[in-house]
Amino acid sequence: MHKIKVGIVGATGYVGMELMRLLFSHPQVSLEIVTSKHAAGQRLDALYPALRGHTSLRFVAPDDPSLKSCDLVFFATPNGTAMFQATELLNEGIRIIDLAADFRLTDSKIWSEWYGMDHVCPDLLGSAVYGLPELNRERIRSANLVANPGCYPTAITLGLLPLLKSDFKWDGAIIADAKSGVSGAGRKAAIGTLYAETGENFHPYAVDGHRHWPEIHQTIQQVIGKSFEFVFVPHLLPMIRGIEASIYVHVQAEIEDLRRYYLDFYQNEHFVDVLDAGFWPETKTVRGANDCRISLARPRGTQMTVVMSVIDNLVKGAAGQAIQNMNLMFNIAETTGLETVALQP
Amino acid sequence: MHKIKVGIVGATGYVGMELMRLLFSHPQVSLEIVTSKHAAGQRLDALYPALRGHTSLRFVAPDDPSLKSCDLVFFATPNGTAMFQATELLNEGIRIIDLAADFRLTDSKIWSEWYGMDHVCPDLLGSAVYGLPELNRERIRSANLVANPGCYPTAITLGLLPLLKSDFKWDGAIIADAKSGVSGAGRKAAIGTLYAETGENFHPYAVDGHRHWPEIHQTIQQVIGKSFEFVFVPHLLPMIRGIEASIYVHVQAEIEDLRRYYLDFYQNEHFVDVLDAGFWPETKTVRGANDCRISLARPRGTQMTVVMSVIDNLVKGAAGQAIQNMNLMFNIAETTGLETVALQP
Amino acid sequence: MHKIKVGIVGATGYVGMELMRLLFSHPQVSLEIVTSKHAAGQRLDALYPALRGHTSLRFVAPDDPSLKSCDLVFFATPNGTAMFQATELLNEGIRIIDLAADFRLTDSKIWSEWYGMDHVCPDLLGSAVYGLPELNRERIRSANLVANPGCYPTAITLGLLPLLKSDFKWDGAIIADAKSGVSGAGRKAAIGTLYAETGENFHPYAVDGHRHWPEIHQTIQQVIGKSFEFVFVPHLLPMIRGIEASIYVHVQAEIEDLRRYYLDFYQNEHFVDVLDAGFWPETKTVRGANDCRISLARPRGTQMTVVMSVIDNLVKGAAGQAIQNMNLMFNIAETTGLETVALQP
Amino acid sequence: MHKIKVGIVGATGYVGMELMRLLFSHPQVSLEIVTSKHAAGQRLDALYPALRGHTSLRFVAPDDPSLKSCDLVFFATPNGTAMFQATELLNEGIRIIDLAADFRLTDSKIWSEWYGMDHVCPDLLGSAVYGLPELNRERIRSANLVANPGCYPTAITLGLLPLLKSDFKWDGAIIADAKSGVSGAGRKAAIGTLYAETGENFHPYAVDGHRHWPEIHQTIQQVIGKSFEFVFVPHLLPMIRGIEASIYVHVQAEIEDLRRYYLDFYQNEHFVDVLDAGFWPETKTVRGANDCRISLARPRGTQMTVVMSVIDNLVKGAAGQAIQNMNLMFNIAETTGLETVALQP
Repeated sequence: MHKIKVGIVGATGYVGMELMRLLFSHPQVSLEIVTSKHAAGQRLDALYPALRGHTSLRFVAPDDPSLKSCDLVFFATPNGTAMFQATELLNEGIRIIDLAADFRLTDSKIWSEWYGMDHVCPDLLGSAVYGLPELNRERIRSANLVANPGCYPTAITLGLLPLLKSDFKWDGAIIADAKSGVSGAGRKAAIGTLYAETGENFHPYAVDGHRHWPEIHQTIQQVIGKSFEFVFVPHLLPMIRGIEASIYVHVQAEIEDLRRYYLDFYQNEHFVDVLDAGFWPETKTVRGANDCRISLARPRGTQMTVVMSVIDNLVKGAAGQAIQNMNLMFNIAETTGLETVALQP
Repeated sequence: MHKIKVGIVGATGYVGMELMRLLFSHPQVSLEIVTSKHAAGQRLDALYPALRGHTSLRFVAPDDPSLKSCDLVFFATPNGTAMFQATELLNEGIRIIDLAADFRLTDSKIWSEWYGMDHVCPDLLGSAVYGLPELNRERIRSANLVANPGCYPTAITLGLLPLLKSDFKWDGAIIADAKSGVSGAGRKAAIGTLYAETGENFHPYAVDGHRHWPEIHQTIQQVIGKSFEFVFVPHLLPMIRGIEASIYVHVQAEIEDLRRYYLDFYQNEHFVDVLDAGFWPETKTVRGANDCRISLARPRGTQMTVVMSVIDNLVKGAAGQAIQNMNLMFNIAETTGLETVALQP
Repeated sequence: MHKIKVGIVGATGYVGMELMRLLFSHPQVSLEIVTSKHAAGQRLDALYPALRGHTSLRFVAPDDPSLKSCDLVFFATPNGTAMFQATELLNEGIRIIDLAADFRLTDSKIWSEWYGMDHVCPDLLGSAVYGLPELNRERIRSANLVANPGCYPTAITLGLLPLLKSDFKWDGAIIADAKSGVSGAGRKAAIGTLYAETGENFHPYAVDGHRHWPEIHQTIQQVIGKSFEFVFVPHLLPMIRGIEASIYVHVQAEIEDLRRYYLDFYQNEHFVDVLDAGFWPETKTVRGANDCRISLARPRGTQMTVVMSVIDNLVKGAAGQAIQNMNLMFNIAETTGLETVALQP
Repeated sequence: MHKIKVGIVGATGYVGMELMRLLFSHPQVSLEIVTSKHAAGQRLDALYPALRGHTSLRFVAPDDPSLKSCDLVFFATPNGTAMFQATELLNEGIRIIDLAADFRLTDSKIWSEWYGMDHVCPDLLGSAVYGLPELNRERIRSANLVANPGCYPTAITLGLLPLLKSDFKWDGAIIADAKSGVSGAGRKAAIGTLYAETGENFHPYAVDGHRHWPEIHQTIQQVIGKSFEFVFVPHLLPMIRGIEASIYVHVQAEIEDLRRYYLDFYQNEHFVDVLDAGFWPETKTVRGANDCRISLARPRGTQMTVVMSVIDNLVKGAAGQAIQNMNLMFNIAETTGLETVALQP
C-alpha cells in the first residue's frame, strides 16, 4: 500500500502535537518532515515526551527542501504564516491543509479587518475549500488547498447545519454562547492562561468581537443565502480540551420533529452523533476523539430551541478534522486513523 | 454590644459550612447552636477541619429546644425542610432566613409543580420577603421570614434589574446562559459530581426545565408587570465555586448609555460592581467574597446587548447574602462581616 | 485471523470502561459479553456515551451462560468477587485475568488480614501468576489465571526492579512516596471523591497501612530473597489519571552507573522508558498510554538515590497491563492494541 | 489607635497580591504605598480586580520617596532585589520584611552558589532574623530586618521542629517529599505553568537541587548543632494553593509518645495544629488561612515515622507569615488580621 507522504509546518503548538499524535496511529501515512523555526534540530520527542518510542524524527528548518517531496503539507502555524508558503507549494503540485485561518474567509478585505494584516495571496481564496466534510465533502475530495475550520465554527456550524438546510422556519437572531478549554489559546508563554489564572475561574472574553464570528457568519450566510443577525460570545473554561456551544434560535416546529430531522440529516455521518430526547452532550465523551455530539431541547415555558454541540477543540476542531479532510483528498476511508474511543474518564 | 444570637439548622452541606465560615468572622454574631440530623454529637470541626481552633461547638439534634432562645435561625437544609419548622419558630418570635427554596415562590401551586411536594404552610408565602437586598432592602429590614434567593437567580436578577427598572425599551426573549461551579450541587455522595466525572468536563443540564426558572421568572414579572419569554439554560463547570451568567436581550439603546445607567443604578450598592467598557467579569475576582460583578457589551455586527454577571454561588449566591439580609434585619451596617477581599488567585 | 473471544465481568467502573476503550481498538479481539449486576439490560454506550457508534452491546447478568464460550474472561470487579467465579470458569478451560486483588497475594492468611474476608479458593493462589510482564513474562504466557497487579505496585515495582536484580549494594529502608489521580478510587458515589472535596486539595491517606503494601512487599521479597523495611505512603491528587512514585533508597553506586544499568535493563521493554539525566517524568506523558517512565537522581548534598516512576493508573496500572498480559497468553505481539500515543496535553 | 504605616515593594506577583488581600483586612495597618517597576501609574485594582471597592491606590515607581515615611516595608520582589534597597531603608530607621530569599542564608558564599549572583550586603546577613515565629519569636520582636521563610521551609521546619528540639533519638537521613500548588511558581509568563501543561499532570522538579534545600538544612543544623543528611524533593501539583510535605525519619519512640510530645510542643501556638491519631492533613483545610496542620504516623510493618505537614504556600508560606512577623515586630496581638477561617470547599 502506498503511503501518503506528509509534512507538517510548525508543529510545536498543541494543534501540531495533536496532529502528530493522530498521524502516528494512521496506517496509511508516512510522516516525512516536521518543520519549526525555533525547534529546528531538536527531536520531536524532546519537546513532546509522549512521542518517546514512537519516532526519532527531528524538527527541521521551515525552508527545508524535502517539504517539496511530500504529497500533502499541513500548516499548524500561527495565522498569517501559511499564506507566505502556499503558492510555491501548490505550484509544485503539493496539496495543502491549513489549520490556521489564512484561507477560511473568501473576502480578503474582511480577513484583513479581523486579522490585522494584508493578505498576500488573495487570489487563492477563491479556490480554497472550507474543510467541513459534512458541508463540503465532494469539493474537499478534489481540493488542492483546504482551509481547515476553526474550533468554535466547527461546533457551531455542525449544530446549525440541519436547521439551515431544512424547510423549518426560523426567525430572529441566532445566539451562540460558546465555551472552550484553554488549549484553544495555544502553547505560548502568557499570564492569562497560567494555571493560577485559569484554574477555578470562568469568564467570557472577546465579547466585543471574536475572529471566529466572520467565519461562522460567512458559512451560515452561504447556506441560507441571506443576511441575518448572529451573536457569538466565547468563554474560557478551566479545563484543557473541549468546546461546548449552546445555540439559541426560534424555530417554528415541534422539538420532536426537529430532533427527528437532525437524526435523519446526520444518520450517515460517522462523526456527528445526535442524542435522544433528555440527554445533554458532555465534552468528556469526545475527549481525544473526532466526534461531535449534538442535542436539542425546548426549555419548559418557552418557545426557544436550544441546540447544544460538543467537540474536542484539538480533534474535530482542528487536527482530527484535518485528517478527515486528508482522507477525503486521498480517497481513503474517511474514518481511517480516527476511530479511537474518547478517553473517558 | 449585644450580639445577635444565631442558630443554624442543617449545616453539614457546603452552604452551611460557608455560613459558619462567615459567621465566625462576624463581630456582632454569637453562633449558639447548629443542628444536624446525621451529625448530632459530632464536633463541627470534625466535619470541617478548617474550623479547628475557631470553635468547640458540637452539632445537636434538630429538635433541640435551645433553638428557641435564638434571635435568628438560618435554615441551610434541603428544600422542603424549613417549611416544617417555620411556623413554630415564628410563633415564638424567632426570625428566620431560609437558604433553601421553601419560601421563594409566592404561588404554592407553582412551587408544588417544580418541587414535587405539597407545601405545608402556604399561608406563610405571602409574608415571606424575597431576600435580594438590591431589590427589597426596606421590606427585608422588617421581615420575620426571609426567603434567601437561589444562586442563579441572584446572578441573573442583579444582571437584569437596572434594565428592567429603566425606561429603555427591550423586546423579544431574555436568554440566560448560566454556568455554575460544582459546589452548587451540594455535599452529597453522587456519581455525577465525582472529580473523575466533573473534572475536565463541561455540559449543560436540566435544559428541559430547572427549578430556578420559575423563581427568576416570578421576580422579573413582578418588576416589569407583564408576561415575557424567559429562557434559562444551566451548565456545570469543572471548578468548585463561581457562577457566570451571560444574558442576551435586545435593547433599544446605545450600549454606552445603558452602561452609564447601570453604573448610576448600582453606585450606592456596596456589593454590586459594574465594570468599564471592554472589561469582562471573572468568577475568581469574587471567590469567597459577597460581590457581584457585571459587564455589558454589544458584540460587533449585532444589535444584541449581552449582560455578564458573576458571583460566588456560596457567598452572594447563598451564605453571604443571607448574612447581608441578617444585617438588614437587625439594623447593623449592611456590610458587617462581609468585607473580605476575594481569594485571588 | 481467529479473534480472541473475550468477556468482561463487571465493567461499570473506570477500569472496566478503560478495558472496553482499549479492546474496541484491539484488532485481534472480539468482545462477546459484558456482565453487570446493576446495569444488566442497559446498552454499554448508555453508561459510557464515549462508546456511542462503537458498539451496540448490552450488559448481561453475571450468570449469563455465554461467558463460558469465551476464550478469556477479565474480571473488573470489586475485590472479593472473582474468587467466587474463578474455579468454575477455569474448570471449563476458560482463562482468567483478574484486575482486582483476589489472586495477587500468595498467602491467603495475609490476604484475609488486609482484605477483611476469607478467601474462598486459596488453592488457586499457588497457580495464579502475578501479571507484571517485565517480571514474569514467560510464566504469564502459559498461565490460566493471571493476577493483574495493582496500580501503585506496578509503578513502584517497575521503578525498583533493575536495582533489586542488580549487584549494586543498597541498605536501609525503601521508602515509596506515591501519589494517585482520583480515578483510582473508582466510580462509586462517595463524598470524599466529589469534585468539591478533591479539587484544589492534596492529602495523604491510608498512611497507617494500604492494601498495596503487602503486594509490593511480597514481590520485592521474592526478588531479593530476604526481609527488608518497606515504607509506602499514598496521597490523593486533584486530577483524574496518573500515578507518580518517588522512591528513596541508599545505593552504593554512582548515579550515572545506576542510570546506565537501568537503561540496559529496560532496553528491550517496549513499555518502560528510562529518561536521561536531568529529565523528570510527568504523568501527562503517559495519559491514556501503557507506558511507564522512570528517572533517577542523586540530589545535591546527599547520598540518596531517588527513583521516580509514572504510569496511567487505568492503563499500565490496570486495563492496559491486562491487555498486555492477554497478548502474551494468546501468543500475539505484546504491543498489539497498545501503541497509541499518550494524550498530551 | 496609631496604625502601622506600611509600604510594599513589588506587589504585582501572587505573594504581593496576597499581602494586599490580608493587609486590607488588618485593623491596625495603613497601606501607604505600593511600588512596581512595570505597573507604576496603574491602579492596584486594575491588576487585581478582587480589590475593586477596597482601594483606590495606584502603583508608584520603586524609587518613590514616600517609601521612607513608612514604619515597615515589605519586599515581595524577585530574589536579589531587596538587597539593593535594604541598607538605605534600614539607615532611615525603616524596618523591613523581605519575602524573597535575600536574607535567609547566613553564609553569603552559599547564597551565591544557590542563587547565582553576588550578595551586595553580606554584612546584613548577621543581623537579619529568620522569620519563623515558632522558632525565633523573641528575636523577631526586636528585629529590624526579617527574612521571611520560604514556603517549603515553613512546612517542613514546622513539621520537624518538635522532634529536633526533643530528647527523642533519631538517626539516618531526613527525607522530605514535598508537593506544591502552582502559585508557588509566581505570576510570570511561562509555558511550564500554563493550565494546559500543569492541569491533569504531576511531576517532580529540581530533583538535583532546589534553593530551599540549603535554607532548610541551615535551620535544622542550627537547631541540632551537628551535620546530618537531608533529602528534599519538590513536586508540582495541579492546583493553585497549598503545600504538603511528607517527611520520613527513623525515631526511637512509640508514635503515640511522639504525637503527645508534638501536641504539647505546639499547644500554645495559634497557627500550628497537631491532628489526632488516624487523621491526615489536607491542604484545603488551610486554603487562605495562616494555619499549618501536622499529623504523625507509623505505617504498619515499618519502624518509620512519617510527619505530614500542610500550609497554604501564599499565607503561612509567605504573606500571612510576614504579617505574623509584623505583628510581633510592632507589639500587637500575633493573630491580628490572621483569624479568618480557611475557604473550604
